[in-house]
Order: sequence, then structure tokens, then C-alpha cells
Amino acid sequence: MLSFSDCHTIIENHLKQIDFAGKEPAKLYQPISYILSLGGKRIRPVSALLACNLFTEDVTPAIKPAIAIEIFHNFTLVHDDIMDNAALRRNKQTVHAKWNQNIAILSGDAMQIVAYQILCDTDAKLLKPLLDIFNNTAIEVCEGQQFDMDFSMDDHVSLEDYIRMIELKTSVLLATSLKVGALCGDAPLEEANKLYEFGRSLGLAFQIKDDYLDVYANQDLFGKTVGGDIAENKKTFLLIKALELAKGQHADILQRALKNEYADITEKVEIVRKVYNELSIPQITCDTIAQFSDRAFCWLDSLTIPDEKKMNLREMARELMEREK
Amino acid sequence: MLSFSDCHTIIENHLKQIDFAGKEPAKLYQPISYILSLGGKRIRPVSALLACNLFTEDVTPAIKPAIAIEIFHNFTLVHDDIMDNAALRRNKQTVHAKWNQNIAILSGDAMQIVAYQILCDTDAKLLKPLLDIFNNTAIEVCEGQQFDMDFSMDDHVSLEDYIRMIELKTSVLLATSLKVGALCGDAPLEEANKLYEFGRSLGLAFQIKDDYLDVYANQDLFGKTVGGDIAENKKTFLLIKALELAKGQHADILQRALKNEYADITEKVEIVRKVYNELSIPQITCDTIAQFSDRAFCWLDSLTIPDEKKMNLREMARELMEREK
Repeated sequence: MLSFSDCHTIIENHLKQIDFAGKEPAKLYQPISYILSLGGKRIRPVSALLACNLFTEDVTPAIKPAIAIEIFHNFTLVHDDIMDNAALRRNKQTVHAKWNQNIAILSGDAMQIVAYQILCDTDAKLLKPLLDIFNNTAIEVCEGQQFDMDFSMDDHVSLEDYIRMIELKTSVLLATSLKVGALCGDAPLEEANKLYEFGRSLGLAFQIKDDYLDVYANQDLFGKTVGGDIAENKKTFLLIKALELAKGQHADILQRALKNEYADITEKVEIVRKVYNELSIPQITCDTIAQFSDRAFCWLDSLTIPDEKKMNLREMARELMEREK
Repeated sequence: MLSFSDCHTIIENHLKQIDFAGKEPAKLYQPISYILSLGGKRIRPVSALLACNLFTEDVTPAIKPAIAIEIFHNFTLVHDDIMDNAALRRNKQTVHAKWNQNIAILSGDAMQIVAYQILCDTDAKLLKPLLDIFNNTAIEVCEGQQFDMDFSMDDHVSLEDYIRMIELKTSVLLATSLKVGALCGDAPLEEANKLYEFGRSLGLAFQIKDDYLDVYANQDLFGKTVGGDIAENKKTFLLIKALELAKGQHADILQRALKNEYADITEKVEIVRKVYNELSIPQITCDTIAQFSDRAFCWLDSLTIPDEKKMNLREMARELMEREK
């Protein structure tokens, strides 16, 4: 049985074998090498291999689909970074900052095609089902990104809309990774769908945890500046829930924050965090994370395979939930 | 046997049936409806249907792949317009001008996925070969666009490099349309490949004709401002050939033009056009167009099907070559 770390090694080795670096035109391919070399947890492709490994010893059939998903994910990062005007990713320059915007648009486009090329290099009987799942998910990820951009201009986002947005933007690709991995391991469709649901709930818990850490992480461990989302008025689970609950002075403070009436960012973060605390937002958020992660574990439990095989996916989920950054 | 106009009607009707307009998020899907509604000659999808029709009466199997290619082509237009900072396309606002740049990036990304969705909705036995051709071509189109951007910063582009660039950026998608159409009509691979070569040569002739018209079109018929490429120092067939041949005063004038030393654009266009004339660039360009179009017709002739069936594709090619805008 392969561990997370075993799978991570397989993925890194395969990513290294795809040699874009020498290809022409260099300005199209170098950014692809660059973004893929920035590393990261590789949760999606590793999940695919772990899911495959639940049903078969040899995870080889899942490797290319897993790599395709990772390349697709990195394509979305390159384009999202342009849209968010982000200068840094994983403490390195973003593609548009290192090269320029046009190069980032075009190399992102090429990555999307490369993802399909690699996905298509799969077993004939799996080709159509994998493409159908991948296509649907890819378009959902775009929908999620557009909803996210829409929400940044809208101060009346409901929690339901927010959950749907993060489901599209984050969860479905993790869910798809697991389902695709399972199908590559010859899993029955019903079992693969349970893994999809596991991933969907886990992805929601993961994203809300992300929102939580941005406000409540230990700064020494976090990596980014704690409070960044509050500074930027980002529509997170915490802000939307707070806007829903706030009355009187609390509501006034949140509105002033949204209108950027606090010139001092440190003060803004402090005062909004105080409102969150007084409205029990940390507790409500942690409860919601727990609800979604419990739901994820239920789906994992429901798989009709020996329990010990589920250990690695359970461990991965637990680590994602307990992370401090 | 279907005419160009019959095929055009089929394509327009199918494009209208894909209803993005009501889908959410609206800012993702409305730009897709918009760009697809701007019309155009639909040369690529029509070519696919005409190629299919060479081998079979019923072109239905080629319709979805043809639509997929047209949507892919329109995706490249949306992103190219951002990269070129173009405000207008077919005398209408470009997507990034009408909405904004982020929306243009993301709706373009979604179009690429939609193209794959539609392409994948094809006969099982054709799925893999069509995807392989489409993937290769799609990545070549990106390579062509990057070379084009590279060339804009480079005053030493060879004619060979230029031809390779337009082959990638323009020809291969037309070639692929024809090949895909033929394969959907159950053509033998050898015949489909001849149609690919027909499209490749025709595409080169078409693009060089485009360059020619930009300098020598009749302004009353042309639609755009004649001389736009000269004004922008665009690396066209004409400029690259002129730079290759120019000596003495001719070379000086071209260098001054490239350094934007002519403040008056009308004067710049006139003076560069005069250099072109004195270097016989119009004649050389027309000869090259004729060479490529002759080569295209040879490939069409080489198809082992009755000659009368080739009439519509021959007519289409002739009209493209004789066009005045």
C-alpha cells in the first residue's frame, strides 16, 4: 500500500520527466516548467493515486490522469494570479510577474491543452468516461472562479452562494481527482462516486479552514500575513457569516471595513477580528469545518473495502484538517 | 452535394442551438454567446463539412467536431485580442473591451473546455484519433501565437521562420478542420492527410494574401484601414522580404520606419509602400501566394475521388485567393 509520501514521489518524478524546458518557443514552455517546479502538496494527483490504490496494487493507470489534473490545476493558478494581480505564489514570482501578462495568458492556455494531451494518453476504455468527468469539472472550476470575481463586487453574498462557489472553485477538482483515480483502479462506479463525495466534502472543509487560518493562524507558522483576507475585504466564510449575524455597532464596523474607512490595516484587522470573536465566528467556523470533514469521513467509511486500506486517505484528510498553514 | 452556403447555414444553426445566454454565471457565458454571434466566414467548420461531404452524403458526424473547432478558434480570438490590445473585431467591441480583461481571460478558458466537451460528444471509434489531431493542432496554434509575439520584438526574422509561424498560427487549424471532416466521413487516412496538406498550403496562401491586402487592398472594399501593418511595424511577409532585399537608401528607410522615425503615419505608409514597389515586393508576394495556392490545388487534385466532388472546395479556395478584403 502506497503512502502519501510514496505517491508524492511518483508525481514529482513524472512531472520532472515532462521536459518543457528545451522546447520552442521558450517563452511558451519555460513558464510551464517554472510553475510546475514550484512544488506544493500535490494533493490532487496524490489523492488520485491513493484512490486508485484502494482498488489495485499497481497505480500506473492513474498516473497520467493524475498528472493531467495537476497541470490543469496549475493552469488555473497561472490565470487566477493574473486576475487577482498577485505578485507571489509560494513565495516565488507569479508567471505574469516573472515574464509578462501575455506570456502568462498564453502559457496557461497551452497548459490546458497539455493537460488534455496527457489525459488522452490513457486506456481506450477509460478515455470517454475520464474526459466526460474532466470536462464537466474543468468548466465548473471556471464557473467557480467567475462567481468568486462576482462576489468581490457584491456585499450581499449568501452563505449558500459562498459554499456553492468554493465547491466549484476548489472542491470539485479534488473530488474528481479521487473519482478518476478510483476508476483507473477499476473501481465500481458507485464506489468511485463515494470517493467523489468524500473529496467534495473534504474540499469544502479544506477551503473554510483556509478562510479560518487567514484570520486565526499562528503568524509564526502561517507563511503569509495573517489577516490578509480582512485587509482586502475578501468574501470569506467568516465575513459572510459575520455580515449575516451582525447588528448595531458590529454591523456598522463591518460596513466601515468594507468601505475601507480604516486607513490603518493593522487596526482594521484587529477591529474586524474583535467583531468576529464577539459574534462567535471562530466557533461557528470550526463547527462548520467539522461538519464537512465528518461528512467526508462518513463517505470514506461507506466504501465497501477493508477499513485498513482507507488509512492513508483518512490520514491525509486528518492532516489537511489539522494543518496550521 | 452541399455547397459552402449550405454548410454555412448548418454551422450557424448549430451555433445558435448552443444556448450559453441563459447560463450562470452570466459574465462567464454571455461573452461566449457574444463572440460566437459576431459571425464571420466560418471557413474552418465549413471546410470540415465540405471535406466530410467528399466521402459521404450525410455530414452529421462532422458537425460537432466542426463546431468544436470553431469554438476553439473563437477562444484564440478572445485571448489574442487581449494580447494585441485590440478594441475591435469585425467592427464590434472585443470581449475584453466590452466586459473587462479578467472576464475575457476566463470566458476564453471556458470556451477551450466547451470545445473539448463538444468534440468528445463524438463517435467512440473516432474519439481518440480526433482528440490526438486536435490536441496537437491546439498546442501548435499556441506556439504560433508565441512566435508571433516574439517576432514583434525581433527585427531579424527570417522568411522561413515567418512561414513556420503563420503555418502554426493559421494554417494548421484549417488543415485540421479538413482532416477531421474527412475522417468523420470515413475517409481513408491517406486521403484525410492529403486534405490536411491542401489546408496547410491554402492557409499559408491565405495568410500571405492577408498581408498583401493590408498594403495593397482597394480602400473602398477593404473594411480596415489599408496600411495598418506598416503603421504598426508588423512583421509581415512583405516587410520581412523587403528587409531581406533592401540595400542602401531602401534599407535606411525601412530601419527608420521600424524605429518610428516617421511621425506622420500616412507619410510612413506611403514611403514604405514605395520601397516595397521599388523592390518588386508586390510581385514577389503574389508569386508566393500563387505557389502556395497551386500547391494546395495539387493536393486537392491528388484525392482519389471523382473530380466533380471537389468542386466546392476548389471554389472555396479560389474565392479565398481572389478576395479583396
